[in-house]
Amino acid sequence: MKLALDAMGGDHAPKVIVEGAMAAIKDKQDLEITLIGDEAKIRSFLTDEERINIIHTEEMIEADDEPIRAVRRKKQASVVLMANEVKEERADACISAGNTGALVVAGLFGVGRIKGIERPALSPTLPTIDQRGFLLLDAGANVDATPKNLLQYGVMGSIYCEKVRHIKHPRVALLNVGTETGKGNSLTKKAYELLSEAPINFIGNVEARDLLDGVADVIVTDGFSGNVTLKSIEGTALHVMKLLKGTLTSSLKTKLAAGFIKKDLSKLKEALDYPEYGGASLFGLAAPVIKSHGSSNERAIYHTIIQACEMVEQNMVKTISETIATLQVDEGE
Amino acid sequence: MKLALDAMGGDHAPKVIVEGAMAAIKDKQDLEITLIGDEAKIRSFLTDEERINIIHTEEMIEADDEPIRAVRRKKQASVVLMANEVKEERADACISAGNTGALVVAGLFGVGRIKGIERPALSPTLPTIDQRGFLLLDAGANVDATPKNLLQYGVMGSIYCEKVRHIKHPRVALLNVGTETGKGNSLTKKAYELLSEAPINFIGNVEARDLLDGVADVIVTDGFSGNVTLKSIEGTALHVMKLLKGTLTSSLKTKLAAGFIKKDLSKLKEALDYPEYGGASLFGLAAPVIKSHGSSNERAIYHTIIQACEMVEQNMVKTISETIATLQVDEGE
Repeated sequence: MKLALDAMGGDHAPKVIVEGAMAAIKDKQDLEITLIGDEAKIRSFLTDEERINIIHTEEMIEADDEPIRAVRRKKQASVVLMANEVKEERADACISAGNTGALVVAGLFGVGRIKGIERPALSPTLPTIDQRGFLLLDAGANVDATPKNLLQYGVMGSIYCEKVRHIKHPRVALLNVGTETGKGNSLTKKAYELLSEAPINFIGNVEARDLLDGVADVIVTDGFSGNVTLKSIEGTALHVMKLLKGTLTSSLKTKLAAGFIKKDLSKLKEALDYPEYGGASLFGLAAPVIKSHGSSNERAIYHTIIQACEMVEQNMVKTISETIATLQVDEGE
Repeated sequence: MKLALDAMGGDHAPKVIVEGAMAAIKDKQDLEITLIGDEAKIRSFLTDEERINIIHTEEMIEADDEPIRAVRRKKQASVVLMANEVKEERADACISAGNTGALVVAGLFGVGRIKGIERPALSPTLPTIDQRGFLLLDAGANVDATPKNLLQYGVMGSIYCEKVRHIKHPRVALLNVGTETGKGNSLTKKAYELLSEAPINFIGNVEARDLLDGVADVIVTDGFSGNVTLKSIEGTALHVMKLLKGTLTSSLKTKLAAGFIKKDLSKLKEALDYPEYGGASLFGLAAPVIKSHGSSNERAIYHTIIQACEMVEQNMVKTISETIATLQVDEGE
């Protein structure tokens, strides 16, 4: 198995990318990794070259570059060359912690879609109180979704949870404004019908306030609502932690008390930590393409690499391709 | 000034409704309140009848009743009779803490829309770190919104913040998947253009993760995304507080520390408390119609009554009506 990694993407690149790669290589005997980026910078963190190759490039896409234009113009950018490794079948999957939009574009044009999949979905796993987590898709790859898109998201999410997360009969739910059947806007009403007939364990509508309680394993929604949901959850968790920090450092008394429970509080912070759940896959592409969080540390990169290996070993793309081919949807939907 | 209150709506009705009404009457010399609901139950909490009238009814709409059907069938329900008081001009505004959908339907059919307003918007105020709060609209009155709807939400929200919250040149922003111009789905792209030309202080796109930092005074979005955003924020805040509680009661040591900072932690909880910011108005109706949170206590009901009085005194409906009449929008939008 061979993975291609964008060594230049993310807040702590290339350091954490190189370290995460070396850690994964140690644990997976059949794994080879190609790191793509500035060779001198990569080498400054590389202490063991076993099964690691480097493709040198100095071009890279910045976090604030406009994705489509950047991918078109920067043909030697690390993320573009990375997708190219998959396209040319020199890698089985690829990972970047850089500009999400650029990864979506490079994935679409470089790696390409699975036949029958109209739009890929960005699919992060979010933490829940029972630590199982849930898959949210689409988190923003496609902001104008159709009911058929949502059906495909449900099917792909279910396959991922079953194959890679080893959950039997994953519970697939539709994000909606109420739990009752018949609730929602025109998109979710039609998507509800399609999901009900799909070969998945569809459990109906869920509301956003119940997501973190672990009401479902897969949450299906359009890319606009998914993006807003993901960022609302992230923003609120950060906000509350900020308020808590303010409270705990407001006086000598609270500082003393906080000192006592420092370890417990850092456990709380960990429970809210996404990177532990791996990266966000772009489901629907012809090979696993994974976005690791921009703030990923070495441990998060390691987890994302292991996740990519699972997806390749379980041949997820083949299962998605075969299942999608069996779905009958009126084009009118 | 006369307000009509649904005495039977909400988790703690009629107790907190009656108590909130008596508190407001004490503070506002020109205020009269009509309480609508079970007279015997209302009287059991009523210790001062000054400027308070009761309309007796035993029918009420439950939290899980289907709104349209319930409003049609239960013609004597407290929320229906309440809207009727406004319709018949025996009240200047009305408040309910009951079934939100039923209030929207009773408001639409009972009170009616302002001429030119296509759809009313449910508009709660959410807490921010600087305690100013922000208005979110629409939080779910209209789940299939058009760009023109969003334009009207922006204008109504701006007028409310200026007139009632006394904010000069309120910053109006569009909820979107990125901050750059040109981002978004087809709805937000068109709404962006319309809002840019409106007579408001439109500051562009904002992302959901920045909402609680107070990036804008008014956040405009469609009812589906708004509902999901509101519930994501509520759910996450509750979730983190639950995790914190779990952390603080996990051992004798943490319990001791928590005891030390109990007061500070309850301040933290207050900072996350919505009812302090009043109820969620249904903007776009011919009179102020306000939804108070279902879990409202007496203090929250009091605040909502004061808010309704401000809206009447500032003649907000007239300003909205006049401003909407000046907006030129291609019907093609």
